[in-house]
Amino acid sequence: MKYTDLIAACQQEWQEYTEHEFVSQLADGTLDQTCYLHYLKQDFLFLKQYARAYALAIYKARTLSDMRQALPSVHALLEHEINHHITYCSEWGITEADLEKEPEDAGTVAYTRYVLDTGMAGDMLDLFAALAPCSIGYAQIGKRLLSNTDASKLADNPYASWIKLYGGEEFQQSVGQGTEQIDALLADVDINSRRGQQLIQVFATATRMEVAFWQQGLDILR
Amino acid sequence: MKYTDLIAACQQEWQEYTEHEFVSQLADGTLDQTCYLHYLKQDFLFLKQYARAYALAIYKARTLSDMRQALPSVHALLEHEINHHITYCSEWGITEADLEKEPEDAGTVAYTRYVLDTGMAGDMLDLFAALAPCSIGYAQIGKRLLSNTDASKLADNPYASWIKLYGGEEFQQSVGQGTEQIDALLADVDINSRRGQQLIQVFATATRMEVAFWQQGLDILR
Amino acid sequence: MKYTDLIAACQQEWQEYTEHEFVSQLADGTLDQTCYLHYLKQDFLFLKQYARAYALAIYKARTLSDMRQALPSVHALLEHEINHHITYCSEWGITEADLEKEPEDAGTVAYTRYVLDTGMAGDMLDLFAALAPCSIGYAQIGKRLLSNTDASKLADNPYASWIKLYGGEEFQQSVGQGTEQIDALLADVDINSRRGQQLIQVFATATRMEVAFWQQGLDILR
Amino acid sequence: MKYTDLIAACQQEWQEYTEHEFVSQLADGTLDQTCYLHYLKQDFLFLKQYARAYALAIYKARTLSDMRQALPSVHALLEHEINHHITYCSEWGITEADLEKEPEDAGTVAYTRYVLDTGMAGDMLDLFAALAPCSIGYAQIGKRLLSNTDASKLADNPYASWIKLYGGEEFQQSVGQGTEQIDALLADVDINSRRGQQLIQVFATATRMEVAFWQQGLDILR
Repeated sequence: MKYTDLIAACQQEWQEYTEHEFVSQLADGTLDQTCYLHYLKQDFLFLKQYARAYALAIYKARTLSDMRQALPSVHALLEHEINHHITYCSEWGITEADLEKEPEDAGTVAYTRYVLDTGMAGDMLDLFAALAPCSIGYAQIGKRLLSNTDASKLADNPYASWIKLYGGEEFQQSVGQGTEQIDALLADVDINSRRGQQLIQVFATATRMEVAFWQQGLDILR
Repeated sequence: MKYTDLIAACQQEWQEYTEHEFVSQLADGTLDQTCYLHYLKQDFLFLKQYARAYALAIYKARTLSDMRQALPSVHALLEHEINHHITYCSEWGITEADLEKEPEDAGTVAYTRYVLDTGMAGDMLDLFAALAPCSIGYAQIGKRLLSNTDASKLADNPYASWIKLYGGEEFQQSVGQGTEQIDALLADVDINSRRGQQLIQVFATATRMEVAFWQQGLDILR
Repeated sequence: MKYTDLIAACQQEWQEYTEHEFVSQLADGTLDQTCYLHYLKQDFLFLKQYARAYALAIYKARTLSDMRQALPSVHALLEHEINHHITYCSEWGITEADLEKEPEDAGTVAYTRYVLDTGMAGDMLDLFAALAPCSIGYAQIGKRLLSNTDASKLADNPYASWIKLYGGEEFQQSVGQGTEQIDALLADVDINSRRGQQLIQVFATATRMEVAFWQQGLDILR
Repeated sequence: MKYTDLIAACQQEWQEYTEHEFVSQLADGTLDQTCYLHYLKQDFLFLKQYARAYALAIYKARTLSDMRQALPSVHALLEHEINHHITYCSEWGITEADLEKEPEDAGTVAYTRYVLDTGMAGDMLDLFAALAPCSIGYAQIGKRLLSNTDASKLADNPYASWIKLYGGEEFQQSVGQGTEQIDALLADVDINSRRGQQLIQVFATATRMEVAFWQQGLDILR
């Protein structure tokens, strides 16, 4: 099977995630800034756990080649992406101290710990099936918003930088490489086997946790 | 330090958890039945992960004595409590098939996977600090609702059985034994040490995830 | 594939394990008692880790049914088998205090931690593939020694009780049930797939660690 | 407590490790080349597991700072040290294909999986206590052999390169930094507390597994 089979097997959850109200409001610039700031702070906490998940992939690897494939993600997260995120947050008036003292919201905990526990209990393929909705979904959302002017606007949109980041060439290419790795791992798995069905279940649950992650950004206003 | 120090260190979160609106409505019988049924189904999914967490405690144990202390919980959950829960659910019209096909909601995932990941990444004391809000909180809620007729009513309350279960002697005693075990583990830890502060952080986060678990029961009506 | 395919794929290692010099000397009663006592003490330490491994299987399980299948092993080990072993050791003049203060020898560490780490890094099937040489090998050795009077003698053999235990009906039946469970897990796996080859590799390595476990019993005399 | 307390608490095991016969023969150049080649091949397999252990440290970390402290070790191992080892082995006539097909010997499994399992079951401090004998012991051995001409000879010694590597400035400095990190983690721990005693036990067991690792190099001749 391929990663596209995972998406095809949970169309409804995938749509709820990639076309979530938070995304629509971000796309047309109507998202309340309080929601966006909450999202940015939670995303910082998310990135820490994300780095732990790729470190877990190295621990789980059976071959040097697999270990080396996971290393650049850990390295990029800890040495670059988290710092970039801190810089980006500071442009929105959020200090590093604000980020450090922010408590993890339930949606953040739900997605990240689901990934980590599923990866630990299962094998490396379970881990990547749980990680996949994040990068693949962001790439799909970014591409749609950047290219489809019906779905988004870039002028006079305070969140245009978000759209350009995830819709941009660099992010799209990096996710493209990631999906090739996932497809290589999935190549041995028959979609109709017990293993195939387990992976669909993992991917669908992780996708629903991504929905909860968007939703918590809106719920801050409740 | 003692388990009461953990509670004292996060009074606000503890109150939000133990006096949550879901609990208040359950106490006076005004809780919408849809909410209660959702809670019951999620609680079934919770119990599976709870059994995994106590199995993790056996894996984590350094001594035979610690392994044997965790075993009765795994045994009780897998051999009795989950079956009792299935029976109880059937009295509310929920079949075992309903329970099995219920997707895990984000609050359920958040609390259970936080416990499992925190326990795996830390040591046995982290695991028990993350588990503690569940049993201790339920015991405190049950006791208050059963004894305080201002806070609850037992007559004409469809949820009286819940109050009697968690306020009852058997549950209270079992939690009492559990807190003795936690206090024995905590005895070595200075509340002001780095270790003490880590455990407070774990307990507080787990307590906030319990709040999310109650909240998802109300959110089903949104 | 079936468990017999795992054995067939590492005939040489399997023979070195099941026909090890330690076993031959135990079979004909010529084994130095110092070696046997060392083996008994290490086996006590082994059983603790073995209980952790079955607890790990509960943590790793995806279904209630799989959790319940692993529970009796944890229960039997912690509530009965370890105590029986302590009693048996006392008949050989080894006190419980002796057992508790015995340092784990390298062969004991090698086999048990290989099982635990392989099970943690992989999934439940990796765990059972690493556990399998122990029970299946002991059953095969016990059966051969009890039935084949060329290979062993039971009269005037101080180790006859060992042969009767592992060759006996109760142990044989219990291992028979275990191999059915392993075969159920293996049923989906093609022996020629990457997964099949990984499992063969795990089983073969675990078998070699069993050889090291026997060998350390003899090496005590060096 | 400090790392020197760990060594002081297991003087006998430490001496058996750092003054092992394998080391003495390597120091004076009398070590059979078969033994050295076996050691080199096992050391390659060791390095893979060592990288997994540092990846586990990132997974186990509670803070970004701790994650970043473990990253350089993973990076150095996967991007440099393993390749250097392959190059060094080729100078001794061992090809990369030889290294890949070499089965892990029991001493290699014992030490590496003890580290990984102890680190997983305990917390980050347990992991570092189990890792410590390796780097600290090699640094101590290297320093002694390079500086003490009674204990070693460098001229006409085929193993002089080994002594120069581990006795050299670069390795000594890197281990010096590592021991500072361990001391920072140990600073909170009272040597006489239950925690202090657990860490001593972990360090002593890991040291004994290092003895087994040296011994397997000599045992290849049996």
